[in-house]
Amino acid sequence: MAAHHPRESQWPKKELPEARKIMKQIGAQIPRIVESIQVDWSALGRVVAEEVKSSEDMPPVAASTKDGYAVIAHDGIGLKKMVGVSLAGNIYQGAVEIGKCVRISTGGIIPEGADAVIMREYTELVRQDQQSEETEIICKQAVQVGENIRLPGSDVRSSDVIVPFEAQIGSAEFGILNAFGIRTIKVYKKPVVTVISTGSELVSPMVENVPLGMVRDSNAPQLVALFKEHGFNVIDGGRVVDDKEGLDKKLTECLEHSDVIVTTGGVSMGEQDYMKNALLHLGFKIEFGRVSMKPGLPCTVATRESASERKLKVVLALPGNPASAWVCSHLFAVPLIRDMSGYRRINHTKINVRIAQDIKLGDRPEFVRAFIEQVGDEDDGHPIAHVTKNQISSNIGNLVGAQVLLELNAASADKTVVPKNGLVKALILSSNGNF
Amino acid sequence: MAAHHPRESQWPKKELPEARKIMKQIGAQIPRIVESIQVDWSALGRVVAEEVKSSEDMPPVAASTKDGYAVIAHDGIGLKKMVGVSLAGNIYQGAVEIGKCVRISTGGIIPEGADAVIMREYTELVRQDQQSEETEIICKQAVQVGENIRLPGSDVRSSDVIVPFEAQIGSAEFGILNAFGIRTIKVYKKPVVTVISTGSELVSPMVENVPLGMVRDSNAPQLVALFKEHGFNVIDGGRVVDDKEGLDKKLTECLEHSDVIVTTGGVSMGEQDYMKNALLHLGFKIEFGRVSMKPGLPCTVATRESASERKLKVVLALPGNPASAWVCSHLFAVPLIRDMSGYRRINHTKINVRIAQDIKLGDRPEFVRAFIEQVGDEDDGHPIAHVTKNQISSNIGNLVGAQVLLELNAASADKTVVPKNGLVKALILSSNGNF
Repeated sequence: MAAHHPRESQWPKKELPEARKIMKQIGAQIPRIVESIQVDWSALGRVVAEEVKSSEDMPPVAASTKDGYAVIAHDGIGLKKMVGVSLAGNIYQGAVEIGKCVRISTGGIIPEGADAVIMREYTELVRQDQQSEETEIICKQAVQVGENIRLPGSDVRSSDVIVPFEAQIGSAEFGILNAFGIRTIKVYKKPVVTVISTGSELVSPMVENVPLGMVRDSNAPQLVALFKEHGFNVIDGGRVVDDKEGLDKKLTECLEHSDVIVTTGGVSMGEQDYMKNALLHLGFKIEFGRVSMKPGLPCTVATRESASERKLKVVLALPGNPASAWVCSHLFAVPLIRDMSGYRRINHTKINVRIAQDIKLGDRPEFVRAFIEQVGDEDDGHPIAHVTKNQISSNIGNLVGAQVLLELNAASADKTVVPKNGLVKALILSSNGNF
Repeated sequence: MAAHHPRESQWPKKELPEARKIMKQIGAQIPRIVESIQVDWSALGRVVAEEVKSSEDMPPVAASTKDGYAVIAHDGIGLKKMVGVSLAGNIYQGAVEIGKCVRISTGGIIPEGADAVIMREYTELVRQDQQSEETEIICKQAVQVGENIRLPGSDVRSSDVIVPFEAQIGSAEFGILNAFGIRTIKVYKKPVVTVISTGSELVSPMVENVPLGMVRDSNAPQLVALFKEHGFNVIDGGRVVDDKEGLDKKLTECLEHSDVIVTTGGVSMGEQDYMKNALLHLGFKIEFGRVSMKPGLPCTVATRESASERKLKVVLALPGNPASAWVCSHLFAVPLIRDMSGYRRINHTKINVRIAQDIKLGDRPEFVRAFIEQVGDEDDGHPIAHVTKNQISSNIGNLVGAQVLLELNAASADKTVVPKNGLVKALILSSNGNF
């Protein structure tokens, strides 16, 4: 049967921008699903599917921004009799009149009559009572009306947007939701992602003595970890041998509960394109079967209409080499899943970096794993990027410590090398946690 | 008693670099604790406390990097009889001789006798058997000895370091640990961090109708969320009113099970420095009581010797304003806890950005919340940073959407403004998740 295998891939090489465009189009076809959730720790990382508005002014009433004394501005400098105390959580119920003041702390409510706060530093104590409470002070400086006062709603007005549409809930957003007592919010439902490793040579990572010709499956743990780092809803779908029936059964099973399936292996010519054949057999459309990039040439993406709420099932069939699978996951799986999860920024943040060594350009655009040096305080330049060791795609070691993916163009007639100190684009791999 | 309160803070303002130096010195005094853990999902984000070495060569034997035919290089071009198949997970037991070849796939083991692999593309099928297996091919190109062959140990040699000392376990590191079947590793124990909100005005975020003069506590949820985003071992210690006995009891209680306590509130003069007094009463040394920065001036850090394995308890007593607490947590708490957790890079990664608008410099160094624009593909410059709205420290809204903290110097005689397009340093807030 090997004789029937083509000697050249029947799948045209897509250029990278086209492959990315296709991924965006796939994302655009998939409706986002809205669900209501409680504002508890599980809300962290979720994307809000509504504009969250305040139902209150903050502060609700005029409050002091400083520690000092609430006074009447046009009362001017001089002696003031202290008639009370307004502390955070402790309201002064009386009023301030000419010649009088109320001691106030940051956050304290401005008492009736007062229209300014003089800072404690600009006052002098004149008299105190037997409990050592102040009774008379001197104001040494004049204050303006409104000085050191936060007006009601000056931070946030009732019906102001406090968390914008499609913001991700981080610590700041979580704080403000709690500040306004918001207990339930609408967010986008996370898609269910299943990772499957394919390959007849794979054994469990738990196997101590691996039989000759077999290898421990590290792709599934690696990609499940990567998707977990991104906060995705990911399932380890296990391993399956490269054969039509096995793949067919495994994919059918996983498709029932998954929106996205990420497989590794079975997409190169020598692997007889098991995956593409299985996908075609299951009625999938191969959106692309090869991408002009390094690593990751055989990267395959397929879609099939579905009766589920997402309307489309997506399979990303990635190469089995660990570096290829990892890079392709970053470039295609992470943005698609972020897209389906409602993130506004679906791609990694891109910055310019200077490279610490010459890099020879290849015949395809290349994604090189690198780490970056801190920018010194006196340095106005770009961060310096150092390539991690041994970039061949089968080498799992070159991913360790990677903080960025350098995005290198293919060599052209007039540019075959990016010299040391040359500028290149770098995608920040936030998930690495070393940032 | 208010009469006894000083009119000027007795705590000298530390300059920021000095405060950071003190934090580093505190970190250096605290021994790191090593523990053994299983390599499971809980290992993600941990810092390894050993050099993890391979006990195996990878690949263990010579393997093909391409789909093609294992041949003898000096056998040259021409007709070859196919004597077997070597696929990943399927070893060919025989040997290759002159005039013969073995069909091989990527990852397949190089059979005895063969010293090169010719890519399938450079061959032609001549004859096949009744099962459509190939029996004769023509090699159309010569190959070099070793071509398309990964030698044993060419990726990783036995006893090579696969995860370096003090690397953080991300997806790549997790993958390689699984690839080598490593089930147990030594990592640094995470310190236990407790967050406490102080303030007599605080009520639970669950309260729907907040009594006048009271506010919902958003600092504890915000900071617990921030520390959770960083993967820290954090406990919500709840709220406590500003009074000596209450603070004393709460701190004593929490110190029993915590290595680090982060409090908010009670550190400004008007709040009568409740926290500093409570800390002094509990035998703490105030390392600094004010820092020349904005927001966060009253930021206080205190230490006390301890009989615990960490030898030192640390309390970070942060201002109660949400923006101040958040910025101080990023600047002082996160680096200290990362330090105690064994991270090599304890500070946020710093890059240069261009600001989208003029920024007036203040009398103290200032940390301004901002988000950044993607760098365009044709743009060799720095990312453009946009300041989030309303930066006053009491305003919780300005944290929403922040991706970076701009680090602005204090104004000087010759520089009072950074003009639009001017360069400033930005700390990347990876925890935001928007990266």
